Amino acid sequence: MTVKFDNILAAANRIHPYIFKTPLLESPSLNKKLGKRLLVKAECLQYTGSFKMRGAANAVYSLDDSVKHIVAYSSGSHALGSARAAALRGLRATIVMPKDAPPNKMEIAKSLGAEIVTYTRFKESREQIGAELAEKYNAELIPSFDDPRIIAGQGTVGLEIAQQAMEKVVKPDAVIACVGGGGLCSGLGIAVHAMMPDVKIWCAEPEFYDDTKRSIESGKIETVADTSVHTICDAVVNRQPGNLTFPIMKQHLSGGAVISEQDTLRTIKTLFEYFKIVVEPGGAIAVAAALTGQHPSNAETIVAVATGGNIEPDIFSQALNLDPYFLG
Amino acid sequence: MTVKFDNILAAANRIHPYIFKTPLLESPSLNKKLGKRLLVKAECLQYTGSFKMRGAANAVYSLDDSVKHIVAYSSGSHALGSARAAALRGLRATIVMPKDAPPNKMEIAKSLGAEIVTYTRFKESREQIGAELAEKYNAELIPSFDDPRIIAGQGTVGLEIAQQAMEKVVKPDAVIACVGGGGLCSGLGIAVHAMMPDVKIWCAEPEFYDDTKRSIESGKIETVADTSVHTICDAVVNRQPGNLTFPIMKQHLSGGAVISEQDTLRTIKTLFEYFKIVVEPGGAIAVAAALTGQHPSNAETIVAVATGGNIEPDIFSQALNLDPYFLG
Repeated sequence: MTVKFDNILAAANRIHPYIFKTPLLESPSLNKKLGKRLLVKAECLQYTGSFKMRGAANAVYSLDDSVKHIVAYSSGSHALGSARAAALRGLRATIVMPKDAPPNKMEIAKSLGAEIVTYTRFKESREQIGAELAEKYNAELIPSFDDPRIIAGQGTVGLEIAQQAMEKVVKPDAVIACVGGGGLCSGLGIAVHAMMPDVKIWCAEPEFYDDTKRSIESGKIETVADTSVHTICDAVVNRQPGNLTFPIMKQHLSGGAVISEQDTLRTIKTLFEYFKIVVEPGGAIAVAAALTGQHPSNAETIVAVATGGNIEPDIFSQALNLDPYFLG
Repeated sequence: MTVKFDNILAAANRIHPYIFKTPLLESPSLNKKLGKRLLVKAECLQYTGSFKMRGAANAVYSLDDSVKHIVAYSSGSHALGSARAAALRGLRATIVMPKDAPPNKMEIAKSLGAEIVTYTRFKESREQIGAELAEKYNAELIPSFDDPRIIAGQGTVGLEIAQQAMEKVVKPDAVIACVGGGGLCSGLGIAVHAMMPDVKIWCAEPEFYDDTKRSIESGKIETVADTSVHTICDAVVNRQPGNLTFPIMKQHLSGGAVISEQDTLRTIKTLFEYFKIVVEPGGAIAVAAALTGQHPSNAETIVAVATGGNIEPDIFSQALNLDPYFLG
């Protein structure tokens, strides 16, 4: 089973009452300094703070009426998106989160109506706990990326980019989005190419986690050598691209950027300074790709997705201490 | 000469190619905790980081073709808005800024094409320098608030709030905006009441600078006792309401909130946490009014304007160290 543009159109129609059409922002003064036109799709402004709300809403609203309960596992934005989507449809939500997940995120997931079940990272398997809970509650598991409903939901980001580019009378040369498992990049690839076939699409990954870039280059699924390496981009790390998402990404993506921690933090500062938005590390790397020149060659107009804003205050403070790009 | 709703409609038509229709954001989880519906008009996402771009664009695009040069004085957002508006129309811009203005703001004003003339606060008069430069260059002075073109331009914020509330099928009970000289509150008052006559409109001011609240209550222009008191809300302090803005505010505003520094900073943190936007101190006080219950009684649905995001990183870091409202 794959995903087609029609599935993304259907997802857009299904979820539009529950999601926010986030703006495509730009900064005239940054554009001038950069010598390119950069448009930032500000998914950090999405309900629950990230694009994950889209896939979760599409999955939850695709469920049969007989389903009364959902289960999801995530330490971050997928937890919040799933909790909110379930609450909107009046379903119970049980979210499996690591014990050491940020307390703020747990608190927000609870405030969205979810029950939280915690587990100990590296000692317990969240997949197993999730499966057991789903069995116990006769609940439906909402996966975080390798699922046609999730891919189609995230693909609505690409649909909106194409719509908003047309409204602005802009023809982008490139679209860049971050990649973890590939739910966003695969859905976005389908939607953007359906509406703007000439646009080059790239992914962005944090240093040491460039499995998708290497997979696109080699044509087969490559894995991360060591998943224990620390990265601040926790939201976008994954051992390898998904079985469902990879063939789609292979078709639509032509390259990838690899972003250092320093460049990630400087990009967060740049987005603070020029765009006045709060972006989390994983959410900033596609913009970092545009700012550091890691994008399709000769691209003059670039859309980068700022995927989420669920950042811890202490990491944001670290970024604030750095110089942004192109100032001073 | 006063300002009518027609002038605001004309301003909206005049400036729409140059300004961004900023979103009306909301956070379902914050609404739940607050027990009210709070809609935030995110003018921090406006070009040049504040609503000041609107008034400046309306003033600059109202000028006769014979004008080739503008002068403005401001340490902050009005400087950036005026510089950008002039550049868009192809005019020279000379901006008078204090020597100790944030270097980032000077840098951005320059990148927007302006020439900067500095002066020493408390020793030199920016009004006099501005008038001399206007004379020398045969340039037009763009005032920051007490001017019909500025009031009409800022009023487009109110027009958009009414439009966006209708699009969302929401009927606000109250609209709150910060006040310095009153350009925004007067224009917004005219526009909001033209489209939604029942809405109560309040202003918000920082502690020690509640001249507009007291003026509304007494019915005549009241002044700040001591303008040397330090406030982080530098963008919204003024000795007294304007001669043109006050009669309009008296007609449209029914009260005001007074916000402490601590509440201002906690609101900045709350906007970071729930809305993922960067808001400066003066820009946060209208939202603070809603969060601290200083709003028209029985208001269940409140629109607060987050007027700007031009904040220094060190003040934002201070806010990040505080607890937001309604978490934990």
